[in-house]
Amino acid sequence: MTEPLEGTGRVAVVGIGPGAATTCTPEVCELLEHATDWVGYDTYLDFAQAIVTPRPNQTQHRSDNREESTRARAALDLAASGRHVVVISSGDPGVFAMAAAVMEQLDEMGTAPPWAGVVVSVHPGISAAQAAAARVGAPLGHDFCVVSLSDNLKPWSIIEQRLDAGAGADFVLALYNPRSRARPAQFARAIEILRAHRADDTPVVIARDVGRPDEHIRVLTLGALAEPAGSDTVDMRTVVIVGSSQTRTLARTSSTGTGGAWMYTPRSYPPNSSTR
Amino acid sequence: MTEPLEGTGRVAVVGIGPGAATTCTPEVCELLEHATDWVGYDTYLDFAQAIVTPRPNQTQHRSDNREESTRARAALDLAASGRHVVVISSGDPGVFAMAAAVMEQLDEMGTAPPWAGVVVSVHPGISAAQAAAARVGAPLGHDFCVVSLSDNLKPWSIIEQRLDAGAGADFVLALYNPRSRARPAQFARAIEILRAHRADDTPVVIARDVGRPDEHIRVLTLGALAEPAGSDTVDMRTVVIVGSSQTRTLARTSSTGTGGAWMYTPRSYPPNSSTR
Repeated sequence: MTEPLEGTGRVAVVGIGPGAATTCTPEVCELLEHATDWVGYDTYLDFAQAIVTPRPNQTQHRSDNREESTRARAALDLAASGRHVVVISSGDPGVFAMAAAVMEQLDEMGTAPPWAGVVVSVHPGISAAQAAAARVGAPLGHDFCVVSLSDNLKPWSIIEQRLDAGAGADFVLALYNPRSRARPAQFARAIEILRAHRADDTPVVIARDVGRPDEHIRVLTLGALAEPAGSDTVDMRTVVIVGSSQTRTLARTSSTGTGGAWMYTPRSYPPNSSTR
Repeated sequence: MTEPLEGTGRVAVVGIGPGAATTCTPEVCELLEHATDWVGYDTYLDFAQAIVTPRPNQTQHRSDNREESTRARAALDLAASGRHVVVISSGDPGVFAMAAAVMEQLDEMGTAPPWAGVVVSVHPGISAAQAAAARVGAPLGHDFCVVSLSDNLKPWSIIEQRLDAGAGADFVLALYNPRSRARPAQFARAIEILRAHRADDTPVVIARDVGRPDEHIRVLTLGALAEPAGSDTVDMRTVVIVGSSQTRTLARTSSTGTGGAWMYTPRSYPPNSSTR
């Protein structure tokens, strides 16, 4: 039961990072500890509980995935009654996550009561792409694009145009939500677009559940990814990073427990070169 | 004086985030605490010292900016003698920072001694773009590109092509190293390229020293940024985020102390739209 509180209500949109306590910022941990209410996708609240043990007087509001707008409104309503709410995303709340969903609701409602007095803040977290990149070296060490392949909220044609433009200008590409059961053919189409611009030996990393107990990370090539079995492990819990023409791999001489190759994009780009 | 140690040496490339203790991950704080040697750009070691007080028996190796390759080799040499080294970047070491510089050195040296036994790892941090985005809401809430405007290590023509491609495909753009005293005209040229694709009322955020005591954040429009005085505060310590066609601003009804407007990019993109 959530009782109204005295004073100003707050909504803090927080990113807990990939999922481990070691990669959650002290700022976010403190907000989790002191909030009266935790709001978020069921699975992410489980992750948050493994980082900060909730107190008995903290109320948890769990919802299903894809209910971002409803969840954002619920959080703002709670805050309007004086509660101190954390809205919990995994990774960074600003990257395909709850910060935009909360902003959308504020924008829709305008300055009308009852949310006018609520203090809203956003607190970043380590994103899945950053965590995946760190595990394999430095694939994002040069200019890169971040694209969600989900067409739930945008037309697939826009996604194709962005992949084409990003690959055409020789960006490294970090792909979120790469493949769902509802649209298995789209990932193959995305890879086809990238292969029009990149050699088959372009390094790729597939990172699933990065930073969690079931973490699985694999460095392969774009050509191997295009083969029928190449993308078997690619799903909505995976981030895929596709290198630029300059991205390289090298063997690890000392194992740190996460696979056999480093992958990095050099800081420099060849002079007198053109991406076209 | 740095004495060789028994056992395996380590190089941990760490990102301390924007600069405050509240946004440095516990993993990175612990590595700073337990390292025998701190290696990094002078200014970033100052930031790190404000997060973790160095012990008297920890050796600091400070170098100037732009000496990344020399610094990476020095760190690997120290580790080869058994030392436990942290290489310190601000923000994320994987984004235009030391992780790629260390990988480049490993790649150049191959598996030859004396670095063969060194254990290398990379530990992500909150990047400047993420910190800036969080301060103003959620400008990176949809597909985005991250581009460094520095042409120290890549031809300017590549930068122009990437800005054109990214803006043409309606990405949000996060611009690092936007403007240096050595190349003041290039920033104006970059803005001109973006204006060929974007309306003058496109929201822009200029974030200088984000997360530090001198933080200065301003939300303005692309048109205002193009005016002679618009980019006065833009320099190498600034990140600039330029919205897509969909990025919006709204007035803040409750001040959180960082300016008058929220800026966000909605999660959805209009159907039946094309970026061209």
